[in-house]
Order: sequence, then C-alpha cells, then structure tokens
Amino acid sequence: MKISNRAEIMPSSPIRKLSGIAQKIESEGVHVYHLNIGQPDLPTPEIGLEAARNIDRKVLEYSPSQGFLSLRKRLCDYYAQYQIKFDPDDIIVTCGGSEAVLFAFMTCLNPGDEIIVPEPAYANYMAFAVSAGAVIKPIVSTIEDGFALPPVEKFEELITEKTKGILICNPNNPTGYLYTRKEMLQLRDLVKKYDLFLFSDEVYREFIYTGSPYISACHLDGIEQNVILIDSVSKRYSECGIRIGALATKNNQVRDAVMKFCQARLSPPLIGQIIAEASVSAPRDYMANTYEEFINRRKCLIDGLNKIPGVYSPIPMGAFYTTVKLPIDDCEKFCKWCLTDFRRNNKTIMLAPGTGFYSDPNMGRDQVRMAYVLEIKELKEALSLLGQALEEYNSLPKDK
Amino acid sequence: MKISNRAEIMPSSPIRKLSGIAQKIESEGVHVYHLNIGQPDLPTPEIGLEAARNIDRKVLEYSPSQGFLSLRKRLCDYYAQYQIKFDPDDIIVTCGGSEAVLFAFMTCLNPGDEIIVPEPAYANYMAFAVSAGAVIKPIVSTIEDGFALPPVEKFEELITEKTKGILICNPNNPTGYLYTRKEMLQLRDLVKKYDLFLFSDEVYREFIYTGSPYISACHLDGIEQNVILIDSVSKRYSECGIRIGALATKNNQVRDAVMKFCQARLSPPLIGQIIAEASVSAPRDYMANTYEEFINRRKCLIDGLNKIPGVYSPIPMGAFYTTVKLPIDDCEKFCKWCLTDFRRNNKTIMLAPGTGFYSDPNMGRDQVRMAYVLEIKELKEALSLLGQALEEYNSLPKDK
Repeated sequence: MKISNRAEIMPSSPIRKLSGIAQKIESEGVHVYHLNIGQPDLPTPEIGLEAARNIDRKVLEYSPSQGFLSLRKRLCDYYAQYQIKFDPDDIIVTCGGSEAVLFAFMTCLNPGDEIIVPEPAYANYMAFAVSAGAVIKPIVSTIEDGFALPPVEKFEELITEKTKGILICNPNNPTGYLYTRKEMLQLRDLVKKYDLFLFSDEVYREFIYTGSPYISACHLDGIEQNVILIDSVSKRYSECGIRIGALATKNNQVRDAVMKFCQARLSPPLIGQIIAEASVSAPRDYMANTYEEFINRRKCLIDGLNKIPGVYSPIPMGAFYTTVKLPIDDCEKFCKWCLTDFRRNNKTIMLAPGTGFYSDPNMGRDQVRMAYVLEIKELKEALSLLGQALEEYNSLPKDK
Repeated sequence: MKISNRAEIMPSSPIRKLSGIAQKIESEGVHVYHLNIGQPDLPTPEIGLEAARNIDRKVLEYSPSQGFLSLRKRLCDYYAQYQIKFDPDDIIVTCGGSEAVLFAFMTCLNPGDEIIVPEPAYANYMAFAVSAGAVIKPIVSTIEDGFALPPVEKFEELITEKTKGILICNPNNPTGYLYTRKEMLQLRDLVKKYDLFLFSDEVYREFIYTGSPYISACHLDGIEQNVILIDSVSKRYSECGIRIGALATKNNQVRDAVMKFCQARLSPPLIGQIIAEASVSAPRDYMANTYEEFINRRKCLIDGLNKIPGVYSPIPMGAFYTTVKLPIDDCEKFCKWCLTDFRRNNKTIMLAPGTGFYSDPNMGRDQVRMAYVLEIKELKEALSLLGQALEEYNSLPKDK
C-alpha cells in the first residue's frame, strides 16, 4: 500500500509549518498579530447571520447540485452592477471558490496539460492543478514593476501544444495588484490567438481602492466562450466559513461537464447558501463601511512599511494584501524566528513567507505577504514590532 | 479548447435524466411518490436545528482544515458505542461523505490503478474514481443470492498488479445488504494477503434491522493500516444538506496526505459542523423513533413488493433501500414511462433504474432501487401504483 504520486507531490505551503508553532505559543499566552491570513476580521453582515438564526426548516435536505435558483438569480443581479451579464443557468454554486477552481481544472485540463499563472500566486492553485494532474507554468511578475502583468512575449515563450489556459487572480492575492485595461486586452488577445481557457479568480472585486477601473475577464469581447469566472462570497461578506463560491461561464460544454462533477458531490452546503443569499442583500452601508476601513488600513500599512529601513512595498490597488520586500536572507527562517524567538511585551507577529507563492523555491526569499485584516491600532503595533524584529534579526550572529 | 477526457467519460446517472421530467410534471400538478432518493424525509434532530438558530458568532470564519476538534472528539465517543476506537487525530471532517471518498481515492490511487467494488453499487463511486483517473473493477453480486458478497475466488480472479484496494458499502446502498462476520473476515484475509486498501463506507450503520451484528471494517484485526472508513452524518440525522462527513484511518501516511487535500480546500462547512456536533448528542428517543419508523416501512414495502405478480425483493438487513426485480424489459424505459405516461388520479411513482448501479450497461435491466423514505400510508399508495403501472406497461403494444 503506497499513497499516490499526486499525494506525494501535493504541495504543503510553508505557512502551514508555522501554524503549529503559532498555535503552541498562543496557548502559552503569547499574543500573535496575524498578518498571515486571508480571513477578514470584519463582521459578517447581520442580515446573513439572521438568515441562519431564522431557519424554519424541519429537514436539512440536499439542495440542487447547481445551487438554489434563488441564490443564482441574486448573483446575476449582483454581477449586473459590475456590467457582467450572466443568466442563472450560467452559474454553478460551489463549495467555496476552492471547489470552483478544482472543478474548472478537472473539467478543462488533462494530465500533463499546462496553464500559465503569473507569480507570486495563491498557493492552492498549485494544489488543485496537482489534483487534476495538470502543470502550472509560472510567469514571474516582479516587485520592481509593482507586480504588473509580465510582457506578452514572456507568455508567448511559454506557450506550447500542451498549454490549455491562463489563470489570473484580479485583484491579486498575494500582491494586491489590479490588472489594467491594457493588460486585460493583452490577455484577451493571447487567449483568442492561442484558443486558451482564461480562468479568472475575481473574489476581491469589492476591494479596489485607486479609482482605476475593474476590468473583469467577463468584460472582454470575443472570448466569452473561453472565460471561466471563479467567485466566492467569502471575502466580500467576511463569511469564509460558510464555503459558498461560484463558477460562471457562457461556455455550455464546460458548464455541462462541471455539472457532472457537481452531481457526483450531490450539493453545495445548504445553510451556507441561505446565508450567502441574504448577504448579497446586505445594506449599502455594510459594504461602504468595510471599504472605508480597508482604505484606511491600507494607507496605514503601506505608509508604515515604507518607513522601515530596507523595507519596500508597492502600493496595492486592490484586495487586502501586499507582498513586501524585507531586508532578510530567508523569509521562512525569519517568519519562524518571529514566532520562536522574537518577543516584545510577550507579543510577536506572524507573516506569510513569500516562498509559498512561487513554484521556484529560490524565488521570493526576501518577500512576505501581509494581510491587513487587523484594526488600525493593532496594525500600528504590528508595524512597530516588525521594525524591531528586523533590527534584532539582522544583528544576530551569522550562524543564527 | 476541449474539455478533458475525464470530463468526457464522467458518468451521468440515468436518474438524472429522469429528474428533469419529474420536476416538470410536478410543476404541472402531478403528485410524484419519490422512491428514488436517498434523502430521509424524517426531521433533523431539534437539537441540531437549535444549534444553527443559536449561532452567536459575529464572523463566520474558516474552521480548521481537519474540522473542529470538539466535533472530532464527539465522533470518537460516538464510534466507541460501536466498539470502534479512534482518536480525534485519526478523524478528518469532510464536506459530506462524498469528499471523503474523493480524497481517499485522490490520496491512494494513481491513474490506472484499480479497485474492486461489489455491484450493484452507489453510482458516484465511479465518478470519484474517474476524478482520480482510477478504474473500478466491478464484481457482481446477484439478487438470487440476496446480494451476498461474491465468492473470494471471484475477487482473486480480478486482482492484478494494478489492484490497490477494495471498496464496500456496509450496510449497502442500493441493496440494503449487511455483510456477515464470515464475509468481513474473508475481506480481511484478502486485504491482508494482497496488501490492499479497504475503503469502507458505513454511513448506514444506524439502520440495521435483523439482529445480525454490525461488523465494521474497523473491527477487523490485523488490517488497521489498510482500512479507510468513510462516514457521514447525512443519513443518520436526516441532514444531507449540511455536507458533513468524515474520513477516519489509523494509517498516518494516508491521513497526512489527505490533510494536504483538505488544506488546499481550506475548511469543511462551519455551520454544518456546528449542527453535526449537536446532532451527535440527539436524545436516545430520536434514534429510537427513527429506527422504529424504518423497521415498519421496511416490512410494509418488502411484504407489499413480494405480493405483486412477477416482482421480487430480497429482505434487506440494513440501510433504507432495496433493489428489486421487476417483470419489465428495460428499467430506464419503464421508470421514464411512469413519469411521462402513467397516471392514477394524477399521481405516479419515481424509481431509480437499476442500470445506474452497474458498470456494465447490460446489467440491472430488470431492476430498480426503491428507498423507503415515505410514510407508511404513502408507501402503500406507491405500492398500489407500482402494481397498476406494471400491469398497464406490460399490456402496451410491443412497440411501446
């Protein structure tokens, strides 16, 4: 009895190795500022919580494999606000954005097929690619360019007979970058020229801060059959736990095939769908307050970071992350050291090592991802701790 | 852009083709007795529903990838009642039993690897095998033998270098068969002799009616490292919609690998876990009432079926299904005809075609699966309709 090859090569993000240490020191009373996670601290909309509390069903039955029609209709209205036109039939409700990515890959990619993904990238794309036996071909965006889309020529260099698609996350996790209209049109032309799928993860569309327009993959003319939108209510309503996402596409063949995977797993979570459907109707205030809070935090964090000697963060236009360059030799070592050795008043910080967002283990060694999912007051304390940690770490003897 | 080969060959059960017709005639006012589904009609435990109504969280956050420790502890106590010994660390909470099967296959089976599955079998095992690129080698159990385990020699004939495991469902869906101690020991010896995984789906263990003992794969000495238990709260607490299942094994290597798939999908449903944890503490009365109800329905259904000329049902020892032989030429045609053409007082019946439970499209042609998920009064009406439908169907002109 041996486990499968895919299980062997299934990646395990460096952040997971740190989580055990963090849990241990927290149980010992150390206060850890978690800048490492993608779970907003803001409240779930009251209207969503109320929907859960008011459940008057006697039997918690299977729901339709495609998800409740009422939820899919509500999502259509929501997308329409962004000039994205979907019919309820175009939308498949999934168990989080995660299942949407998995089913998209399982449906579109054969073992050995390749997809091009700008890096740094969300680590779990790799896990879902491994699940489908597909290969991610990374194309590196650099911090010097503010993580802009790499030049079209670089994409074309990577395209082979095995290339089946491009995946983007827009606004981006982990960089906060928002692709420009020009970049999106470049992607459209590539997708059209080589007849590729365009997997577009747009779960952070609510979080765009600079006045630059949000150009969805669904806005691009002429590639309607190529685009597979990945979505989730997790981030925008701070309800990551309910596991409700969506896959939407105008491509009937893809949708019919995805539905076969959906039918096999029977249905998406029932209560999650009820909460998500209510949350889509959260009052305008809810989103406005959330937005304003993130605007303030972003300013606080980026300003603070760029004042620390040797630290550089580009200005992220969206999401609630930034990928930062630190004056360190090895981010995994530094992030671990913060948890095991560094303390100020019994407090420390937890950051996500940059290496977890690149395929090449040599990339991102001096980078970390920071999420601004803490209140301003706490963010300021965390920034102060980061400055002190860097000073102390870099004054340690060399064999540290 | 072509979809993947696995998406092409992904099976679509015949029941799904019928569901659209059923929905349509129901919307036109026809009453359909659904004997086709595995969703119990009985109420979810009040204590589970109360747990959902009493949620006092402000943020519906990610839960741990392995599932809440409190739920895993509760499940350990539950298993202990059945003399199954697990530590909380041995248990991984999944999004329904479905995800447990998928992750077990993804972890243990390489593309091309084979598992032996007694048929008729739950159709979605095939879908999860296709997802993992694995091949199901069916071994047919016959209605004449009451769907008993086929002889050991038949298994051995199928075992090749590619054979990685055996999968059983016990008590069985779709037959209601409960494997005897002798049969379970035979399976143990096979698993040991050929060093195979034993995937054991035991989600119907609450529903055992004849006084015969429940022999879990987890009771078998000497194959502790081979056994992967698949479980779910769906059936026993009538809460299929919350999507909470579990994978449990003493095999550390398998568990660590399954956890990598779990981490990629972040977490199982939060509210579902809260409901499941409460439901495990449902008062003794709840399970006793459920059990008594199913005992009565089973007697009513099986007695009734065997009184209809040409119909034969073995006596199922467990679950809430029976696989029945009908005097028909083609179950898919008959089940469809019941929906499209047969009416008595604007009522009809829906059954699951037997062909959906076999790999070979020529098997099960004269069989249907019936679930006793209706009240006795309705079951009796459905039985009466079945008798009349068979008579009418068989008196139609031959080119029907």
